[in-house]
Amino acid sequence: MSIATALTRCLNLAHPIIQAPLAGGGDTPELVAGVSNAGALGFIGAAYSTPDQIIAAASAVAGLTSRPFGINLFAPLSVRFAWQDPTPTLARLKPYFAELGLPAPSVPQSTGASFDEQLAAALETGATVFSFTFGVLPASAVQAIKARSMFLIGTATTVEEAIALEKSGVDAIVAQGSEAGGHRGSFACDFASGMVGSISLVPQVVDAVGVPVIASGGIMDGRGIVAALALGASAVQMGTAFLTCHEAGIPDVYKQAILTAHEDQTRITRAFSGRPARGIVNRFMSEIESDEHDVILSFPLQNALTRPLRTAAAREGRAEFLSLWAGQGVRLSHRQSAQELIARLAKEIDQTIAVLQNTESARGSGKSI
Amino acid sequence: MSIATALTRCLNLAHPIIQAPLAGGGDTPELVAGVSNAGALGFIGAAYSTPDQIIAAASAVAGLTSRPFGINLFAPLSVRFAWQDPTPTLARLKPYFAELGLPAPSVPQSTGASFDEQLAAALETGATVFSFTFGVLPASAVQAIKARSMFLIGTATTVEEAIALEKSGVDAIVAQGSEAGGHRGSFACDFASGMVGSISLVPQVVDAVGVPVIASGGIMDGRGIVAALALGASAVQMGTAFLTCHEAGIPDVYKQAILTAHEDQTRITRAFSGRPARGIVNRFMSEIESDEHDVILSFPLQNALTRPLRTAAAREGRAEFLSLWAGQGVRLSHRQSAQELIARLAKEIDQTIAVLQNTESARGSGKSI
Repeated sequence: MSIATALTRCLNLAHPIIQAPLAGGGDTPELVAGVSNAGALGFIGAAYSTPDQIIAAASAVAGLTSRPFGINLFAPLSVRFAWQDPTPTLARLKPYFAELGLPAPSVPQSTGASFDEQLAAALETGATVFSFTFGVLPASAVQAIKARSMFLIGTATTVEEAIALEKSGVDAIVAQGSEAGGHRGSFACDFASGMVGSISLVPQVVDAVGVPVIASGGIMDGRGIVAALALGASAVQMGTAFLTCHEAGIPDVYKQAILTAHEDQTRITRAFSGRPARGIVNRFMSEIESDEHDVILSFPLQNALTRPLRTAAAREGRAEFLSLWAGQGVRLSHRQSAQELIARLAKEIDQTIAVLQNTESARGSGKSI
Repeated sequence: MSIATALTRCLNLAHPIIQAPLAGGGDTPELVAGVSNAGALGFIGAAYSTPDQIIAAASAVAGLTSRPFGINLFAPLSVRFAWQDPTPTLARLKPYFAELGLPAPSVPQSTGASFDEQLAAALETGATVFSFTFGVLPASAVQAIKARSMFLIGTATTVEEAIALEKSGVDAIVAQGSEAGGHRGSFACDFASGMVGSISLVPQVVDAVGVPVIASGGIMDGRGIVAALALGASAVQMGTAFLTCHEAGIPDVYKQAILTAHEDQTRITRAFSGRPARGIVNRFMSEIESDEHDVILSFPLQNALTRPLRTAAAREGRAEFLSLWAGQGVRLSHRQSAQELIARLAKEIDQTIAVLQNTESARGSGKSI
């Protein structure tokens, strides 16, 4: 059997499963299309992409599937960060660059395409779903997305953020629990306040908004999916589980790190991007965080400064310098194809619901009272 | 209907619900017995009690119920903390004591009864379940508890801790998620590593041990209970939900703080006891944490030093000085009797499982594909 909620019907999905946007190379067209072809929702994480890259990625996905897929961007920064002196950060990063044979780091000319440029491209991709993190979209963007009949999904880490997103006109809300790998989507609170575990966050968001809620954070198998549905979610968004799929375009040392990590070996760090994000603890994270005087710059500057390091580390297979984004469910990760993963999840969902039914009807035996 | 798992049958419970030990006054005999009489498991939190108080509390509970109940202690400290100079802490606390009309704080003669004294009393209480936090019990204690045929439950915040507990001979393990209110049970890792959300922690612990797992942390209603069962738990342990029961012996300002708090307004603090614990942010917590130089002593000394302050604050109804332990599910709290709460939970469990069944069978309509 499979699961049908108002959301899966609306999005024409066989399974209440959304592949989290994996900006940074994880989301190859093969992964995104593989997920969509298996009846879940594949997603292109386009936050770091240029308009041309966005069009190219979507075109590649559309060549591999006729099923719906989504595209994700970061909301535009609502606050311009004050100028920060990059000199101490450049000095701090220099030895790492040298260790990888790279020239000394420098401040990049640009930290990437503007949101407006990215959005204009995203609207042309044929994606049927648009999601975003890090804020509420400007009304003009919401209007443009809806004019294309795209289904709009925002990301909340607290009830207050969820309410703000609903008011802004989103069609559904991802409730990102503290377990989640990658960047924290918090935008209306400091990140620490937004560290609410999924089992608490999801039902409180469900009670506060009228739109469907998508649970994310720490969900890795059918047990987690049924748990999320029990909490009132209409679907789940899973990232880490997809990163170890054959099709995921991350370095094998990164996959290996996920496959061997323990639930207590991830941590929230700003070291790589300037924004709090959960990843497996490694040398770069530990060393930068142990600095007496923190020289981590704000996003997107820190992200741009560390990029050459991460790119070189990926090429050389050195996990110690990679941002090993992963959630707290890492022990439940497996190597498999996207299709195998989704087939397994669908089977586990059925098994889990059957166990719950049996647990409940066991009362008939009278043994429990 | 009601739920029956191997654990509920073994403990002779009608519902897979354990009232978390609420050391510090929450767990009146009326609450503990009320919970047990309603078919769940009431618990006496005896960690701060003398042997005489333990005997008296259990005797009062036994006078109100013939159903099973449990008793909880803190495991003995495995490491003797190095001596710490209390002078800066005494100076830091002095103005607060003055504000409440108390004499200046001083180092207490004793920080309470020893574990061995407490255990000896606990064995005489007629409690059928013994649980503990903060470590693994010495083999002699495990032996003594089992010799009384008491069911033994330890507390883990990571898989590694759960494995250590199973090896030590416990009959079941509470998996304490990061959402949980009150003290973190971590003992084999620093507390930050042990901050794993329930939706991730529970299935990973279930996979790693052979004994039943009890989910705790952020579970407040039937949705959370079914979620925990879906994750593989055999029961749940709930604390915050019981604190706002009529029978709970905490000050009304504390109940009011829980009833009006939001999910993003609790935090982990060492300010009250010296051990990391989750509570609603208030003035004392904020001010002590904003100190440039941390003067918080280790448990149990910090706990003993702040006790007169908390006792006076409770008497005067000043929530700003109380340790307002609460989990992240606070928006789901209600005023009710223990019996009303458990009846509601039982009904919600049935409703939630019915919704899951309907969600699944909806596939029959063919609309979802």
